[in-house]
Amino acid sequence: MNRKISHLGIAVKDLAASEQLFRKLLGAEDVHHEEVDDQGVRIASFKVGESIIELTEATRPDSAIAKFIDKRGEGIHHIAIEVDDVASELTRLKSEGIQLIDETPKQGAHEMMIAFLHPKSTNGVLVELCQRG
Amino acid sequence: MNRKISHLGIAVKDLAASEQLFRKLLGAEDVHHEEVDDQGVRIASFKVGESIIELTEATRPDSAIAKFIDKRGEGIHHIAIEVDDVASELTRLKSEGIQLIDETPKQGAHEMMIAFLHPKSTNGVLVELCQRG
Repeated sequence: MNRKISHLGIAVKDLAASEQLFRKLLGAEDVHHEEVDDQGVRIASFKVGESIIELTEATRPDSAIAKFIDKRGEGIHHIAIEVDDVASELTRLKSEGIQLIDETPKQGAHEMMIAFLHPKSTNGVLVELCQRG
Repeated sequence: MNRKISHLGIAVKDLAASEQLFRKLLGAEDVHHEEVDDQGVRIASFKVGESIIELTEATRPDSAIAKFIDKRGEGIHHIAIEVDDVASELTRLKSEGIQLIDETPKQGAHEMMIAFLHPKSTNGVLVELCQRG
C-alpha cells in the first residue's frame, strides 16, 4: 500500500496569530481555511512539499483540540498518514493488536475519509489514517 | 525556497519495541539505524513518501530526548523542514522575530546540516531546519 504524510495537525489557541507566525516560518503565501463542525475545529493549512501543516483551533470547549490544549498546551496534536484504503488498514492494524479510536472511517477535512488510532498503542502519538474521496 | 517535511522525530523509551510497533503501523520492511553521539541519541527511521518518521531513543540521561520524555512522556518531539539553505533561513527568521536555538547550522543525522528554532516562538512546536550535504 502507498503511504505518505498527509498532514500534521498542530493545536493552537489563536488561529489568526498562529497563521501569521506560520506564514513567516514557512515563507508561505497560500493558506487554505476550513471549518469542520463535526470535530468542533477551524483550520488554516499550508502546503509543504507533498504534505500539509494544519493549524487547528477549537470552536467549542468540548472539542478534542480544546481538551488537548487544556491538558498539554499548544503543540503537535496528531500526524495523518495517507493510505489507499483506510477500512482495510483498520482491519489489518486491529489484527496486529493496535487499539483503534474509530472502528470505521468517517468524514474529515480536505474531503478525506479518516480514522484515528489510539495513542496508547502508538507511543503517545495520535495517528490519523486518511484516504482521498 | 523549496520546502518539504524532511522528518518527524518521535521520542521513545525503548527503541527496539517501538521499531517493531512502527513496522506494523507503517507496513514497513526497511529501517535505517543511526547513532548521533553529539546529540546522545540512537534512531530508527522509516521512509513514508518523501518524508521520514524517525524514532529516537536517548543514549545518555542528559540527552534532550531523555529530558523531553521525563517532562512530557513519549510522543512527537520535533518536526524537521528541509530547505535549500539553512543559514539564510536562520537570518530571515531571526529578522522576522523568531527565536533561534542554534544561531548557525550544525551537523545532524542523515548527513544533514541542521538548526533548531525555539518552540516558544513557534506555538510549542520544536522546529528543525535541515539541508542536505
